Amino acid sequence: MARSLRTLSDLGESALIRRIARRAGRPAREWLVGIGDDAAILRPGRDEDLVFSTDVRVEGVHFRFGRESPRVIGRSALAVNLSDLAAMGAEPVGTLLSLCAPGEMTVEVFDGMVAGFVDEARRFACPLVGGNLSRAESCNLTVTVIGRCARGRALRRSGLRVGDVLYVTGLLGAAALARLRADREGGALRRVPTPRLEAGRALAALPGTRACIDLSDGLTSDLGQLLTGSTHGVEVEFDALPTPRGFSAACRKLGLDPAWVQTAAGEDYELLFVLDPKRAELDPARLSARLGVPVARIGQVVGRPGIRGLPPLEGGHHF
Amino acid sequence: MARSLRTLSDLGESALIRRIARRAGRPAREWLVGIGDDAAILRPGRDEDLVFSTDVRVEGVHFRFGRESPRVIGRSALAVNLSDLAAMGAEPVGTLLSLCAPGEMTVEVFDGMVAGFVDEARRFACPLVGGNLSRAESCNLTVTVIGRCARGRALRRSGLRVGDVLYVTGLLGAAALARLRADREGGALRRVPTPRLEAGRALAALPGTRACIDLSDGLTSDLGQLLTGSTHGVEVEFDALPTPRGFSAACRKLGLDPAWVQTAAGEDYELLFVLDPKRAELDPARLSARLGVPVARIGQVVGRPGIRGLPPLEGGHHF
Repeated sequence: MARSLRTLSDLGESALIRRIARRAGRPAREWLVGIGDDAAILRPGRDEDLVFSTDVRVEGVHFRFGRESPRVIGRSALAVNLSDLAAMGAEPVGTLLSLCAPGEMTVEVFDGMVAGFVDEARRFACPLVGGNLSRAESCNLTVTVIGRCARGRALRRSGLRVGDVLYVTGLLGAAALARLRADREGGALRRVPTPRLEAGRALAALPGTRACIDLSDGLTSDLGQLLTGSTHGVEVEFDALPTPRGFSAACRKLGLDPAWVQTAAGEDYELLFVLDPKRAELDPARLSARLGVPVARIGQVVGRPGIRGLPPLEGGHHF
Repeated sequence: MARSLRTLSDLGESALIRRIARRAGRPAREWLVGIGDDAAILRPGRDEDLVFSTDVRVEGVHFRFGRESPRVIGRSALAVNLSDLAAMGAEPVGTLLSLCAPGEMTVEVFDGMVAGFVDEARRFACPLVGGNLSRAESCNLTVTVIGRCARGRALRRSGLRVGDVLYVTGLLGAAALARLRADREGGALRRVPTPRLEAGRALAALPGTRACIDLSDGLTSDLGQLLTGSTHGVEVEFDALPTPRGFSAACRKLGLDPAWVQTAAGEDYELLFVLDPKRAELDPARLSARLGVPVARIGQVVGRPGIRGLPPLEGGHHF
């Protein structure tokens, strides 16, 4: 009992960093220095580009201690960042974790978050090589991921052409439904997104992949991102969206509009990708086999700007 | 008037990101992709190692909107991170900014922080290439910096030997005194640390540089970090610490112990470095000329573990 009641203030920063370093272990040899110096040192390979992304999980916004376990919070913090590497077609190289927490947090909760983070890091061969700890009134985990891809092969969001075909991996709406159900019914949220790293790397290696983005804010919003800076638009076949079994009934039982949950509630962390029909394999079944994940064709790029075929986004100012 | 009262929620995430991207401009050519994709893409040079560090500034812990201007908050957030690159002897390559803020924050405050950050980024040739915006109850800025150094030349914290000589750049205690005075007297805090990038690069190129660390937590605490994993200790000549003019009197006027302010209150962001007396230039005046900043010799590495010559740290659990 006494053990679980120790707080972060009782241990102090140095002891907490040692605790993290012990769990994290030694990174691969390309990391000349990991945790414990002013900075981590990487010796990049030749003929590769490096990609960098950062994202934060904020207590009360992205997670709640009453809803998710510390382990799920730690795992998710890395998973959503790895999803950005997947969307670039990149392979993980390493990660930095900046953790803010109140001094009154128990060491048990801290250890749980670190264990979840490090487990996920091992699973996807993305060693924790550095970071930062700071006191704050509430908790947040800011993660930076570093990835690599073959020189010039990273998947961008740009370059769309009329006639290009849109696909998504996996199922849309399941993650948002699980979260909304936990909120309404007060249950635990155990779901952690699976970053589609293998599918992303396969897409980067296939001919005819025009663009790719990961679905974090919801299909409609992320299609908007994909179209930023383009004069084109997209036509989505709403009925073609890959939908979890019993999805509509489950949404309605909670008083939710299934179309809204599926296209606007976000957090799918699936890949939305665009193929050039002249060069790419277009058959969803054969694509699924290559990507190692179910794939659905959901629409195409058209000359007229805007997004058609999806319910309009209400509000739209997400901050 | 109406303009300054617009809040982040009024504009929404996409508009805010466009605002940042506009200010940040295009990064150097080695950045194939900057702000606006799932991740930034860097083509690393050959024969160089890359270094990575992350640090956060938390409202109420590291800054207060009543004490610092938004511009100073933004500048400091990058400066303290660049100080870690300086301590590695690295040159900045780019930076990512993850900014958390309440939806009620005015656009004016947001713009001020971004302007300060981007000004500092320009000043030190460290382009802002990506990041993240998230809603949160209070504000924090988590920054990741990427740097480069010649292959194998990064300055580490390890490798100390008995007889090695300790030096610091600049003056110790001035930053803490300015902050403590602002806290006691309620004035504005305009001071932004100067990352010693030029000095760090010079040290990495000089023969006989054994180790280097930046002073963020205070001399005593950071010497403790430098000694982590070493069986050696250090002897500091307290009277040799480089001290701002009128420092003791100014501390006493505020009821503060000058020795505590100078060695334990932190935030100097000067470099503490260790030279091998057999190989290095040891004369402080000649070192100053090479490093482009005043340098003081403050002690040496000894066989007996521990830190001697400094007042003991009270507490010591900083979290």
